Amino acid sequence: MAHNQVESLPIIAITSGEPAGIGPDIILSALSEQTFPARLIILADPELLQDRAQTLGLTVNIQTLNSAQDVTAHQQGSISVLPIQLTKKAAAGTLDIANSPYVLETLKQAGEGCIQKEFDAIVTPPVHKGILCETGAHFSGHTEFFQAQCQSPHVVMMLATEAMKVALVTTHLPLKDVPAAITEKNISLVAKALNKDLQEKFGIAQPKILVCGLNPHAGEDGHLGKEEIDVIIPTLNKLRQEGLNLIGPLPADTLFTPKYLNDADCALAMYHDQGLPVLKYSGFGNAVNITLGLPIIRTSVDHGTAIDLAGTGKANNGSLKVAIQHAINMANNAKKFSK
Amino acid sequence: MAHNQVESLPIIAITSGEPAGIGPDIILSALSEQTFPARLIILADPELLQDRAQTLGLTVNIQTLNSAQDVTAHQQGSISVLPIQLTKKAAAGTLDIANSPYVLETLKQAGEGCIQKEFDAIVTPPVHKGILCETGAHFSGHTEFFQAQCQSPHVVMMLATEAMKVALVTTHLPLKDVPAAITEKNISLVAKALNKDLQEKFGIAQPKILVCGLNPHAGEDGHLGKEEIDVIIPTLNKLRQEGLNLIGPLPADTLFTPKYLNDADCALAMYHDQGLPVLKYSGFGNAVNITLGLPIIRTSVDHGTAIDLAGTGKANNGSLKVAIQHAINMANNAKKFSK
Repeated sequence: MAHNQVESLPIIAITSGEPAGIGPDIILSALSEQTFPARLIILADPELLQDRAQTLGLTVNIQTLNSAQDVTAHQQGSISVLPIQLTKKAAAGTLDIANSPYVLETLKQAGEGCIQKEFDAIVTPPVHKGILCETGAHFSGHTEFFQAQCQSPHVVMMLATEAMKVALVTTHLPLKDVPAAITEKNISLVAKALNKDLQEKFGIAQPKILVCGLNPHAGEDGHLGKEEIDVIIPTLNKLRQEGLNLIGPLPADTLFTPKYLNDADCALAMYHDQGLPVLKYSGFGNAVNITLGLPIIRTSVDHGTAIDLAGTGKANNGSLKVAIQHAINMANNAKKFSK
Repeated sequence: MAHNQVESLPIIAITSGEPAGIGPDIILSALSEQTFPARLIILADPELLQDRAQTLGLTVNIQTLNSAQDVTAHQQGSISVLPIQLTKKAAAGTLDIANSPYVLETLKQAGEGCIQKEFDAIVTPPVHKGILCETGAHFSGHTEFFQAQCQSPHVVMMLATEAMKVALVTTHLPLKDVPAAITEKNISLVAKALNKDLQEKFGIAQPKILVCGLNPHAGEDGHLGKEEIDVIIPTLNKLRQEGLNLIGPLPADTLFTPKYLNDADCALAMYHDQGLPVLKYSGFGNAVNITLGLPIIRTSVDHGTAIDLAGTGKANNGSLKVAIQHAINMANNAKKFSK
C-alpha cells in the first residue's frame, strides 16, 4: 500500500478492557481473523496480549509501537500495541484490584489521544465496574468516563446491528422514574444530538428518525396515557420546525417492523427495555454500543467481561468486530464531513 | 376421508370481523390457498362473502350450513358458513353503524358455541371498536367480550410467532401505572394461568417460562429499581415451590436472545412494550394473539381492520393463517389432555 493510502486510513485506538476478562481474547482473535481497513492501535500491556495469545494457541505478530504515528495499516494477524504496563501480571479469570489503575489509564490515554487528534476513534472492550470502584475511583461506565473527559454536557446511547439503529431518550433509570424524565428538554437534547451525529458521523444528509411513544399503542389518542399528547407530540412538532425529520410518535410494536425500519435511518426509543430487546434480538449477539454527543468517536462491544470465558477460546468476537468496523466507518464519515 | 377421521378433526369457528374491513378478504384468501386439517365454520353473512369473493376475483365454493354438525373437513377453496344476516349490505371500506349488532352477534354465537362444545375453538379477525361503541354497546375488545361471556375472573394475553411466545403481566396500561400493577397477586395469577394453559392447550408437560424483570437489567441488584427484590423475586420463589418452572427475573434484552429463547417454552414480560416489539419483529407480520385463562380456546389476528385495504386484494392473510393453525393445534392438545 502506498504511503498516502496508509495515511488516509483512520487510526483506531482499542483498549484492552478488563485484563482478566475476555477483552484481550476477542482483540487477539478478531485481529487475527481478518484485515480491517484501518490503522489499529491496541492500548495494552504487550505481555498480557502475548500471554493470552499463547493460552489461546493463537499465532499473532505483536509489535510494540514507540508512538502512535508509527502505526501501519492493519494486516490479518498483526497487532500493534502502544504499551501501558500492568501493575501485576493478569490471570485470565481472576480479577485483581491491583490492575484497576491500568484499566483506567488505558481509557485515559485513549480519550486524550482522540481529543489531541492522534486517534480518530476509540473502541472499548468491556471493563468490570465493580473492581474499578473498589479502588475508590468513581467509575459508573465508559460513557460517563469519556463524557467527563470531554466535558460534554449530554451524551446519547445508541446501539446498532445490521438490521437497525436504536437510540434512547432515557437509559439506566428505574422504570417508575421514566415517565417523569420524558420532558421536552430531554427529548430535544437527545433528538438533536442524534440528528447531528447521524449527519456528521454516519454521513446521512437528512436523517429520518422514527420516534416511539411512551405508552402502549403510543397512548392511543390519550386512552392509554397522556404523555404523547402533553409532551411528545408538541416537542416533535417544535423539532420538525427546526428541520429534523421525525416520524411519530409511533407504537413501539408497530415501529419495529420492516415496513417502518426499512425506510428510516434510526429509531428513538423512550426507554431501555422498549428499544433494546428488539435490537439485541435482531443482532444475534453482534450489537455495537455507540456513544453520540461526544466530540470524539467511541464504539463499544455490547457485552460484559465474561470472566469465566477468558482464556478458554469460547468468547465470541462478533460484537468487537462490528464495533471496530463501525468506528472505522464513522471516522471516515467524520473526515469527509469536516472537509 | 373416512367418517371417523373427519369426526376427529376439531371444529373451528371463524367470525367475519368488521364486514367493511379486511376480515372477509383474509378469510376467503386463506381458505382458498390451503387446506386446513380441521372443520372450519365461518360465522358470517354468506352474501358478504360471496360479494367480497367477486370483488377480489377469488373462485370459492361457499356452502351454507343448516347446523354446525353438518360441517365437513376443510378443503382448499371451500367455505362453510353458518349464516348470520347483516342488517345492511356491507361496502368494503365504509364503516356502517347499522352492522354493529351483526358483528356482536357473530361473537356471541361463536362464544356460545364454544361454551356448548359445538365448536372446539374460535378464531377472530379484527373488529372496529369505535363503530361498535357508537351503538352505545360497551365493547373494549374481543378479550373482554369473551371474558364476560365465559365469566372468567382473569385472562392472559399471549402473542406467538414461529420464533417465540410472549405473555404479559400487564397489558393496556399507561406506562406510569405499570410499576404499581406488578404485584404478587397479578404475577401469580398470570403465571399460573399461563402455566396451566401451556400444559392443557399446548401439550407441554412441564412448561419452562422465562420471566423478565421490570427494570432495565432486571434492576441490577437494586441499583436500577427495587421491584425485582421487593416483589418479583419473592413471588417467583413462591411459585417455584408450587411447581412452576420459572427462570428469572432476567434482563429483557438478555432474555430475548436465542441462547435463552431456544431452551424455553414461553417468555413472560411485565408490560406491553417490553415484550411485544421484539415479538412482532420476530413474526414479520405473522403474529397470533391468544387469550389464555378462558375455559374456551380463542386465537386472533394481531392486526386491525385495515379498512382502506378491504376489497383491494392487498390484505396480508399471514396472521389469520397462523391464528387458524394455532387454534387447531390447541384444540387437538386440549382433546388429548382431557382424555
